Amino acid sequence: MPLSAPPSATSLLAVDLEAVVENWRTLKGRLERAECAAVVKANAYGLGAAAVAPALAAAGCSTFFVALLEEGMALRPRLPGATIIALSGFLPGTEKDLAGHEIVPVLNSLDDIARWQAFARKTETVQPAWIHLDTGMNRLGLSAVDTQTLATEPDRLGGLEVKGWISHLACADLRFHPSSSAQLGRFHQQLARLPKARRSFANSSGICRGRAFHLDLVRPGAALYGINPTPETGNPMRPVFRFAGRILQVRPVDTGMTVGYGAAHVVVRPGRIATIAVGYADGYPRSLGNRGLVHIGGMPARVVGRVSMDLITVDVTDLPDSVVRPGGWAELIGPHQTVDQVAASAGTIGYEILTGLARRCHRVWLPPAKGD
Amino acid sequence: MPLSAPPSATSLLAVDLEAVVENWRTLKGRLERAECAAVVKANAYGLGAAAVAPALAAAGCSTFFVALLEEGMALRPRLPGATIIALSGFLPGTEKDLAGHEIVPVLNSLDDIARWQAFARKTETVQPAWIHLDTGMNRLGLSAVDTQTLATEPDRLGGLEVKGWISHLACADLRFHPSSSAQLGRFHQQLARLPKARRSFANSSGICRGRAFHLDLVRPGAALYGINPTPETGNPMRPVFRFAGRILQVRPVDTGMTVGYGAAHVVVRPGRIATIAVGYADGYPRSLGNRGLVHIGGMPARVVGRVSMDLITVDVTDLPDSVVRPGGWAELIGPHQTVDQVAASAGTIGYEILTGLARRCHRVWLPPAKGD
Repeated sequence: MPLSAPPSATSLLAVDLEAVVENWRTLKGRLERAECAAVVKANAYGLGAAAVAPALAAAGCSTFFVALLEEGMALRPRLPGATIIALSGFLPGTEKDLAGHEIVPVLNSLDDIARWQAFARKTETVQPAWIHLDTGMNRLGLSAVDTQTLATEPDRLGGLEVKGWISHLACADLRFHPSSSAQLGRFHQQLARLPKARRSFANSSGICRGRAFHLDLVRPGAALYGINPTPETGNPMRPVFRFAGRILQVRPVDTGMTVGYGAAHVVVRPGRIATIAVGYADGYPRSLGNRGLVHIGGMPARVVGRVSMDLITVDVTDLPDSVVRPGGWAELIGPHQTVDQVAASAGTIGYEILTGLARRCHRVWLPPAKGD
Repeated sequence: MPLSAPPSATSLLAVDLEAVVENWRTLKGRLERAECAAVVKANAYGLGAAAVAPALAAAGCSTFFVALLEEGMALRPRLPGATIIALSGFLPGTEKDLAGHEIVPVLNSLDDIARWQAFARKTETVQPAWIHLDTGMNRLGLSAVDTQTLATEPDRLGGLEVKGWISHLACADLRFHPSSSAQLGRFHQQLARLPKARRSFANSSGICRGRAFHLDLVRPGAALYGINPTPETGNPMRPVFRFAGRILQVRPVDTGMTVGYGAAHVVVRPGRIATIAVGYADGYPRSLGNRGLVHIGGMPARVVGRVSMDLITVDVTDLPDSVVRPGGWAELIGPHQTVDQVAASAGTIGYEILTGLARRCHRVWLPPAKGD
């Protein structure tokens, strides 16, 4: 993945679409007969849904999940013929846009179902829907009581074409966590009382927890983007992006000097500080002040002092002059340091780092290989 | 500040431009003769530079600071006649764009000065510049040694019009911190050896630390956007925005149930959970899981469980049914809870919260009052 950017670019997010596609194929390879969809919500976790989703579609993916209607509307022209499903945000007044852009809503409550049914009746159409049964997240979806109501009052589904039933794992990233199989058991119990339709349960981690979780359709997100779906062991996914910042300046410092806001770093030996054009406004977390690690020419350098809005300062005393030059690049996430490692240093998870990155950095997408 | 948004909007950032303008006037009112500029970098700290900067220009602000050339280029058409200064990122190869869009660079090193001079000579022009003298941040700017070189070799400035000298306070937010006056002393020492030009030193907090810091031009950022420049005491600034999320669903829960990822909240009494369509992909920090506070109808409700990418769950057991209804709004930042308070709960500063917010939320700008 070469780093290429215009001279004015101070930070760079380079996304390897081939790696995203390969990750999708890897996950698909674990499935016996279930369909492998792709979650591209939150702008494909920050990596650019407008580039990521068509690359996956070209590789054979035909079902895409977004969070919000507006995300689906933005993708619709780029995904002709694909199914787009909006996980949340089926809000009053959005019915016409959903139907008009062929975005299938996930219905999360009896109220949602009634509202979508009313729209179908008013427009004399049959409207497609996935219906979310809650099995333990207690976040969105029909409760056990609601599901019972739906089972005993099947007219509530009149005018709707139930494309499938969906539920969501709370602890799939924790291997053998008892709640996963408990949730699966509840899902099957509920499904037994409802009309037959496709069933979707597994996220990225769920796919790795065994075939029982695959059912008819799986919906990986994080793993497509290189986040480890099995944190207890090695990462089976390929990293898909590099995030780099431009070195603006290299300066000598001497013992007793302080660096940055709050004088939060005190220099303890004569050395050199490089200032890099990435800060928390670029999504580099402020919690990495005096903790983060970058790599320049493959060699590690510590973040010293606080993370500023637009800048970080790193100690390059031990790096050769020839490697650290203004205008060059420092790798913040990439081959030498995964997004999961950066997240651990920052006290969060890779998902939050990812979705925070793409604000003002220059972005390039390396296309997938042709002809396969 | 009424909350108005299209039906599909799941989160809303409402910016009160009148309050931004009033904050600018408040700061300007503290100055004797210094000019009051405005810092609008990082998209006006996330609030939308394309709306904020013209509102300030209309109120009389004529100098704007951005971090990056590209930020300046985006603003240039909206700020005819204004001075736009780019604080960092004077990178090789950007000279033509700077001159072409009339963005004045801050030169941070002798190399920067030489490069800008070479461009001026090649194009047979005189190029404007601010020059940054480091007085203790050790981040960007000429070191004491560099400044001495510049003082003894004035030809280095040939072909350049030095619009001013700039430096930056490290600890202005800490009242009476000794480093502030030490930095000011160093700045004056350095200035005494250099050609006369305007001098700029104070950020928002610096303005509040006394007239000695004002010099010729001050450059507030954070305080314009409602962040307290004097954290040791009450906030003299007006809050300028509200951030709200749509309530998607309200569900009953019972003792022993768990909520969200990792089953990180265990329900200890029968109650109700509201799910709100804001998550860390919207800039609501994941560190607010089981800590954050929202307000619905003016009443507080705690975030329970983890913050998800697109959703949070809050305990609304003690709130009346009539107040908590799907489709309604929960206030995340606003009259009941300042950005500084939210930042403190999240373990960071208001600046990081602000710059992280505006990714996929719906944004509205309330125009400033006319005719003043």
